[in-house]
Amino acid sequence: MKKSLLALAVLGAFAGAASAQSSVTVYGIVDTGIGSVDINNGGERTTGLTSGAQSPSRIGFKGTEDLGGGLKANFQLEAGFNSDNGGSAASNQIFNRVATVGLSGAFGKVDLGRQTTILKDAHDQIDPFGGSGSIGNIARIFYNGGVATNGAAVGDRVSNTIKYQTNSYSGFKAGAAYTFGEQEGDNGAQRQYGVGLGYANGPLNVQFAYNNVNADTATGGVVTPVGEAKIAFIGATYNFGAFKLHGAYADGKFESNAGGTDVKYRNGLIGVSLPLGPGSLAASYAINDNRTFDDADSQQVAIQYSYDLSKRTNLYAGYARTNNDIGAALGGSQLGSLNVTNASVGGGQDVSIIAVGIRHKF
Amino acid sequence: MKKSLLALAVLGAFAGAASAQSSVTVYGIVDTGIGSVDINNGGERTTGLTSGAQSPSRIGFKGTEDLGGGLKANFQLEAGFNSDNGGSAASNQIFNRVATVGLSGAFGKVDLGRQTTILKDAHDQIDPFGGSGSIGNIARIFYNGGVATNGAAVGDRVSNTIKYQTNSYSGFKAGAAYTFGEQEGDNGAQRQYGVGLGYANGPLNVQFAYNNVNADTATGGVVTPVGEAKIAFIGATYNFGAFKLHGAYADGKFESNAGGTDVKYRNGLIGVSLPLGPGSLAASYAINDNRTFDDADSQQVAIQYSYDLSKRTNLYAGYARTNNDIGAALGGSQLGSLNVTNASVGGGQDVSIIAVGIRHKF
Amino acid sequence: MKKSLLALAVLGAFAGAASAQSSVTVYGIVDTGIGSVDINNGGERTTGLTSGAQSPSRIGFKGTEDLGGGLKANFQLEAGFNSDNGGSAASNQIFNRVATVGLSGAFGKVDLGRQTTILKDAHDQIDPFGGSGSIGNIARIFYNGGVATNGAAVGDRVSNTIKYQTNSYSGFKAGAAYTFGEQEGDNGAQRQYGVGLGYANGPLNVQFAYNNVNADTATGGVVTPVGEAKIAFIGATYNFGAFKLHGAYADGKFESNAGGTDVKYRNGLIGVSLPLGPGSLAASYAINDNRTFDDADSQQVAIQYSYDLSKRTNLYAGYARTNNDIGAALGGSQLGSLNVTNASVGGGQDVSIIAVGIRHKF
Repeated sequence: MKKSLLALAVLGAFAGAASAQSSVTVYGIVDTGIGSVDINNGGERTTGLTSGAQSPSRIGFKGTEDLGGGLKANFQLEAGFNSDNGGSAASNQIFNRVATVGLSGAFGKVDLGRQTTILKDAHDQIDPFGGSGSIGNIARIFYNGGVATNGAAVGDRVSNTIKYQTNSYSGFKAGAAYTFGEQEGDNGAQRQYGVGLGYANGPLNVQFAYNNVNADTATGGVVTPVGEAKIAFIGATYNFGAFKLHGAYADGKFESNAGGTDVKYRNGLIGVSLPLGPGSLAASYAINDNRTFDDADSQQVAIQYSYDLSKRTNLYAGYARTNNDIGAALGGSQLGSLNVTNASVGGGQDVSIIAVGIRHKF
Repeated sequence: MKKSLLALAVLGAFAGAASAQSSVTVYGIVDTGIGSVDINNGGERTTGLTSGAQSPSRIGFKGTEDLGGGLKANFQLEAGFNSDNGGSAASNQIFNRVATVGLSGAFGKVDLGRQTTILKDAHDQIDPFGGSGSIGNIARIFYNGGVATNGAAVGDRVSNTIKYQTNSYSGFKAGAAYTFGEQEGDNGAQRQYGVGLGYANGPLNVQFAYNNVNADTATGGVVTPVGEAKIAFIGATYNFGAFKLHGAYADGKFESNAGGTDVKYRNGLIGVSLPLGPGSLAASYAINDNRTFDDADSQQVAIQYSYDLSKRTNLYAGYARTNNDIGAALGGSQLGSLNVTNASVGGGQDVSIIAVGIRHKF
Repeated sequence: MKKSLLALAVLGAFAGAASAQSSVTVYGIVDTGIGSVDINNGGERTTGLTSGAQSPSRIGFKGTEDLGGGLKANFQLEAGFNSDNGGSAASNQIFNRVATVGLSGAFGKVDLGRQTTILKDAHDQIDPFGGSGSIGNIARIFYNGGVATNGAAVGDRVSNTIKYQTNSYSGFKAGAAYTFGEQEGDNGAQRQYGVGLGYANGPLNVQFAYNNVNADTATGGVVTPVGEAKIAFIGATYNFGAFKLHGAYADGKFESNAGGTDVKYRNGLIGVSLPLGPGSLAASYAINDNRTFDDADSQQVAIQYSYDLSKRTNLYAGYARTNNDIGAALGGSQLGSLNVTNASVGGGQDVSIIAVGIRHKF
């Protein structure tokens, strides 16, 4: 009798804790390393502490509520920060990574707010580096470094977005997203949309995505024509057991609406990832091929070894190098992770970073 | 034996969790919808994602410590944010909604820091929309939209404030608050105070509040005279069972200290709220009557239906419209919830917003 | 049978909560009081709400993961804020107090990121006021108020820093830290380092620390010479039982690299702390002696009583006064805690603050 009373007391004592716990989870990643960057082969290396070499540092709050009948309400709020200096990742935008609320169930999942693009969802599954971190992420060189000429941003993350994703049917999964432009007087200006289709089953994972950005702006009903950025991406991984092969191709085009030249890009990636000793190795080679202008291509090689101390904590060592033709200047985000004062990559300059660090998930 | 050991082990394992849990609770609201705003009847509607149409999105941390003898220490830290884009609600002010610490007990409750005014506490109990959210909150049109002419802000929330509230005695409850101006050389400049008295018992709720703002400023001991804003508010709700009737009246006056004209306002609200089907309906009509200048009145109608998916999650649909005389320009915060770039309400322009969304509490 | 099943159900129900709880703890301090400051003896006092008079208000997230074999992974993220107005303590730097990740074990403890200097670690153990709070902290007057002439900041907290601390061996403990300058083209510019050694055993605590800042800057490889700030600190406390005696001495020197005058400082502190009635009393007298220029000394007296309501909550009353020679202007952070608009301390002006408040730890 006493025993069950005790157990009941336990139940009672934790009833509050349990319900509170179920409504919100605090989670995050702190990834800090020692990094050394070199711009243009020759100059002295700048060495310092780096944030997010393997995975961007972040802290978040999320929760799921069971509404019954398989329906769930979900929310997620995620803030990026620089773990080397405690700095905010974005000015006056606390939840710069994710701010969503939505429903999921038999119909799939719909989320409203700030979130990843369908395009990023696809390449994150294909990139040997998981599409994040400053060492080797695919998006730094793909799509001309994430920003098409003339200002049409092709960001990883977008605000004011409704995203719908299906559940998985025999490995097939599709998604679509629409980003409101919210320019007064022209609902098309600054709008963005994306669609995706994937197949992940057994050793094979194939991902297709298309992203379209209208770069026009509108103020007080007056539209300033800029252009349209269109990107198509296809990638696949195949797990041979001993290693996984990664390959991706993307085709990008910026169509000027303002009488300028249309610019075309072509991107390719080949990579490999494998378990190795007590950890894992990832490597990739990627190219941004400017098809409109000569001498404006960029290439990137990246390699990283991750040594697991636990499921939540690992050490890593990585190296990445971006080579730019005279008309290209990609790779700056490698510097940004180190927050080097006043440093930037100029046309034709090459950038390399070597980093060793620790990544802790909580 | 083994059973009780097991139970003891459970007790032990969670002792730390339980005490930690009791000291801080993470809570919040994510309210995101699709909204469409129209300025001045004629122009194209701007449609996008909106934050806080029903309730401002927020995340907070709070806790209560039992000090014994009925005395409690309380703290609350609450940050507003825009759930459509992850943006901070205020620049360089993380806990822009609430930042308080204080004591409560038999003597009542005293809180120090940033918090709601006594005035807001009163109208939040009377407003069918609960005094928050961009659809129909009372404060957007009352008190000339929260800001008296000549710059005397009559904000919902104030910093540097001591607030005292009594406990409830047979339904009666009173409160008083003082906001320090913190201007060097004149402790009266920028000070604010409020007093309130309420009676909530059975179907009846009556709330009275008075708020007084000194709008003068002081720098290095030199005072710049501006004026004083005085507001008296009385409101009541009566629950007839099938529906609840809401009514409020406010009288505002801005007295110039700088030789300008004194300006008087008069506000009225009539509203209704009722359970309807699986949710609830709220509607209100409010007026800002400028008694000093002609053709400077504003009117607002608002209606909202809330459909409960659970106690914590609901869908909603709402509509609000503000009509301005040529000398008035209220209703801008309806636009703000959508974060439309470069949009503002001009004199005589009318504003309407329609929104459907989801609100999730955690 | 039923009883053990119940206990098992308890175990099961809380398994998730327990593991989540163990990975992150939310903690903080809210310290808000009523303060009154007076600049230069004569003017009217400015009275208002003050944040952090006893301890700076903060909120943090931390956790420890047991990696096995005595090895642990640790992280800590801590944000300062002003509890009187909800304001952020630093612009665009959310975790302005601490942002670290690291490992600890038999080898000691290593942390990467933003954290306290070795110098601050030492004086926080010696200062009767714990080295924090606006009433009486040692660093406001030591080291010429934390900033050597010509801009070589000697901050309490530094970014981009690796800190190593040994475990305690018979009371002996040592530490070393290196702060990367991260200036492009000169890895020495803006670098900082510190070493420390302490002995804490029984009634005696002795702390020694040395801090060295290179104040040069570099942009695009071009170095601007500024100077070097060197500080040596030694302090001790001895607990006589009825009271604890505190004493500290520091020697500071700013060596110009730009042809300017070298400036030398000498600091001394004598203090006492003791349990008194239901709380505790702390008092200190400190001096900043400018050895290079005449009439540029400052003195500070501070006294504070803390009345405990519980282990986590206390009330306090404190007084501090800084007297400046005509060539000195220290003590401004006393004003800052009150956030008085446009107030600052000029040369030769004296500053005093009196504050009563409540501090709640969660």
